[in-house]
Amino acid sequence: MATVRLWTDEEVSADARVKAVFDDIRFTRKSDFVNNFWRALANQPALLERTWSSIKEVMIAPGVLDPLTKELIYIAASTINGCSYCVHSHTAAARAKGLTEPQHAEFLAIVGMAAETNALANALQIPVDPEFSIG
Amino acid sequence: MATVRLWTDEEVSADARVKAVFDDIRFTRKSDFVNNFWRALANQPALLERTWSSIKEVMIAPGVLDPLTKELIYIAASTINGCSYCVHSHTAAARAKGLTEPQHAEFLAIVGMAAETNALANALQIPVDPEFSIG
Amino acid sequence: MATVRLWTDEEVSADARVKAVFDDIRFTRKSDFVNNFWRALANQPALLERTWSSIKEVMIAPGVLDPLTKELIYIAASTINGCSYCVHSHTAAARAKGLTEPQHAEFLAIVGMAAETNALANALQIPVDPEFSIG
Amino acid sequence: MATVRLWTDEEVSADARVKAVFDDIRFTRKSDFVNNFWRALANQPALLERTWSSIKEVMIAPGVLDPLTKELIYIAASTINGCSYCVHSHTAAARAKGLTEPQHAEFLAIVGMAAETNALANALQIPVDPEFSIG
Amino acid sequence: MATVRLWTDEEVSADARVKAVFDDIRFTRKSDFVNNFWRALANQPALLERTWSSIKEVMIAPGVLDPLTKELIYIAASTINGCSYCVHSHTAAARAKGLTEPQHAEFLAIVGMAAETNALANALQIPVDPEFSIG
Amino acid sequence: MATVRLWTDEEVSADARVKAVFDDIRFTRKSDFVNNFWRALANQPALLERTWSSIKEVMIAPGVLDPLTKELIYIAASTINGCSYCVHSHTAAARAKGLTEPQHAEFLAIVGMAAETNALANALQIPVDPEFSIG
Repeated sequence: MATVRLWTDEEVSADARVKAVFDDIRFTRKSDFVNNFWRALANQPALLERTWSSIKEVMIAPGVLDPLTKELIYIAASTINGCSYCVHSHTAAARAKGLTEPQHAEFLAIVGMAAETNALANALQIPVDPEFSIG
Repeated sequence: MATVRLWTDEEVSADARVKAVFDDIRFTRKSDFVNNFWRALANQPALLERTWSSIKEVMIAPGVLDPLTKELIYIAASTINGCSYCVHSHTAAARAKGLTEPQHAEFLAIVGMAAETNALANALQIPVDPEFSIG
Repeated sequence: MATVRLWTDEEVSADARVKAVFDDIRFTRKSDFVNNFWRALANQPALLERTWSSIKEVMIAPGVLDPLTKELIYIAASTINGCSYCVHSHTAAARAKGLTEPQHAEFLAIVGMAAETNALANALQIPVDPEFSIG
Repeated sequence: MATVRLWTDEEVSADARVKAVFDDIRFTRKSDFVNNFWRALANQPALLERTWSSIKEVMIAPGVLDPLTKELIYIAASTINGCSYCVHSHTAAARAKGLTEPQHAEFLAIVGMAAETNALANALQIPVDPEFSIG
Repeated sequence: MATVRLWTDEEVSADARVKAVFDDIRFTRKSDFVNNFWRALANQPALLERTWSSIKEVMIAPGVLDPLTKELIYIAASTINGCSYCVHSHTAAARAKGLTEPQHAEFLAIVGMAAETNALANALQIPVDPEFSIG
Repeated sequence: MATVRLWTDEEVSADARVKAVFDDIRFTRKSDFVNNFWRALANQPALLERTWSSIKEVMIAPGVLDPLTKELIYIAASTINGCSYCVHSHTAAARAKGLTEPQHAEFLAIVGMAAETNALANALQIPVDPEFSIG
């Protein structure tokens, strides 16, 4: 259960501000499906608008990193933050963008390895080498 | 300051087991520079061997993800884990593998965006959509 | 499912030490409802007593911050720690203390924004400005 | 040391896009001091613009929560995320907005208590009470 | 639901590489039960092999810390990382290795206390005393 | 630099409430050295008293776990929370209680392994096996 109500399509249709965002989500993604994240944010129209606008700019607009790499970075952050919803939604998004099983395996190995060495470096409190300075 | 002693090259040379790992690090990376992470792990030879062996397999051996993508995944995890040492060492590694300023900017935007939506999804406790099931 | 057994009211009644804490929870909160957190802690009477005593002192006794502000600070910490139970229980508590939808929206925007800039500052490893020193 | 270069005022003045943001920061805050966070983001103008725009909307524009409460929520999130820079900058900001020592003490007690019960609830894996449902 | 398919015993039997790991898990643990963690990793045979090999070396091979202490360290890390699965599986493992209710209570008190003081130290940004240096 | 002032011995001596806690710290630990954590908490006497009282009860009073095991649990939590100060102070405390280099190596391997499998389980979103239920 959520800490806020999830808006149904009927409720969305009755609120012009929320409906405009949902229409743009459907148009941009070329899909009628709008996932629960947006149905929860619908309770906060200004936050809904700002979050969707940022997602469009950061994750959907063409950039210098390819779309699958973007999703893998997103899942890595979501995994370490322990965000169950985000891991599910962005792993599904990565699959839709072509993630193969061997790529997922390699991704998992990297995230696991990073978490392990993060813990080691934090437990050892290793000072940063001056060679890493960008000075 | 670290919670363990960092080994000097002289100390490494005097310990055959540690020296073998350091020699392989230098040979594999084609560089004489060995960073503090390994000098701290030198106190625990078995952990040093296993960690270097895993890093070689996961991060250095050819795989299905390109080397720069691997580093970005690593930095994303390290950033969220708040590992100062790892963020420094892997950002330097990413630069050595060709990370450009626009790519770094895009990476930062994704990690920031992920952290923001992770917090929102956790605060809203949004239930996972059945559509994301791989069932 | 929990990693410990949740005590029923019958079990609580049969244990004088646990019953005393539950009685005080009910008396202090002016409600018969005792949530699962305390039913799980009932397995560890000393921890139950110390935790309830601290919660009373920190969250319930009159202080210099108003009760709703206290709950918002609590939810912010719980969100970032990814504690599903705590986010649920303290969002409910905040609502009981008068949290409005616009206040919740503003709270969510702040927590999301903080998480985003936390990730950016950690990824950029920005040195603390001397101007922030308290001398 | 940072993972990016921090821009000096001279460099900022030479870049119209970055200068526009810095001018607005100075004008909005009524202060000539611009802290390192923005000098690091200056390397990524689009991210700089979007982040400053969001901060203005979320933290500076009048809302339904008072400015000090906003800062306390921000510090709570930053503390749990272990963001040293953010804890420093927002504790300084809270002081500038009137945070007193007794308020800081109460804030610290709440964040510590939340972190403690977060850990307990996660270790006990306590199921959410149906009473907390918002239905 | 998982982000990958969980392998059934039939599927495991049909894949020699995965079957070899599962056989060794059953033989080493002297139990026919293989938990979901390994059934999920079965999709990535190389990661499955490396993870099981590390777990055997770190958690099962005789060492200088007793088996129950090892599990308590593991649960402490898993609790703070908010890994629900790991808290469940390692609390069960600790019980199988003799964890008593009073020991669990003491463990919980320590993890809670550590989380509280971690938050306090991070909020206060306390400088490390030179006396803690290992020189 | 800290976000609060660290109290000197002179300041402590001039405040009866703070002095009482510092006297008890020195008496209990049989040492004149009082580390910065307490000098920072001195600004908040009630929090100082409650925190010291809890530390005495949880970490110093005789219990069912041995003192070194308690410290290792504490360091594991502090490492994952990324609390630099706490990792330093409790690694020093563990050494004072007899932690050997091989024990530290084994501890580090466990914390690293836990962090790795935590990340894997969170990325795979593995459902908890019913066998782990405590019924």
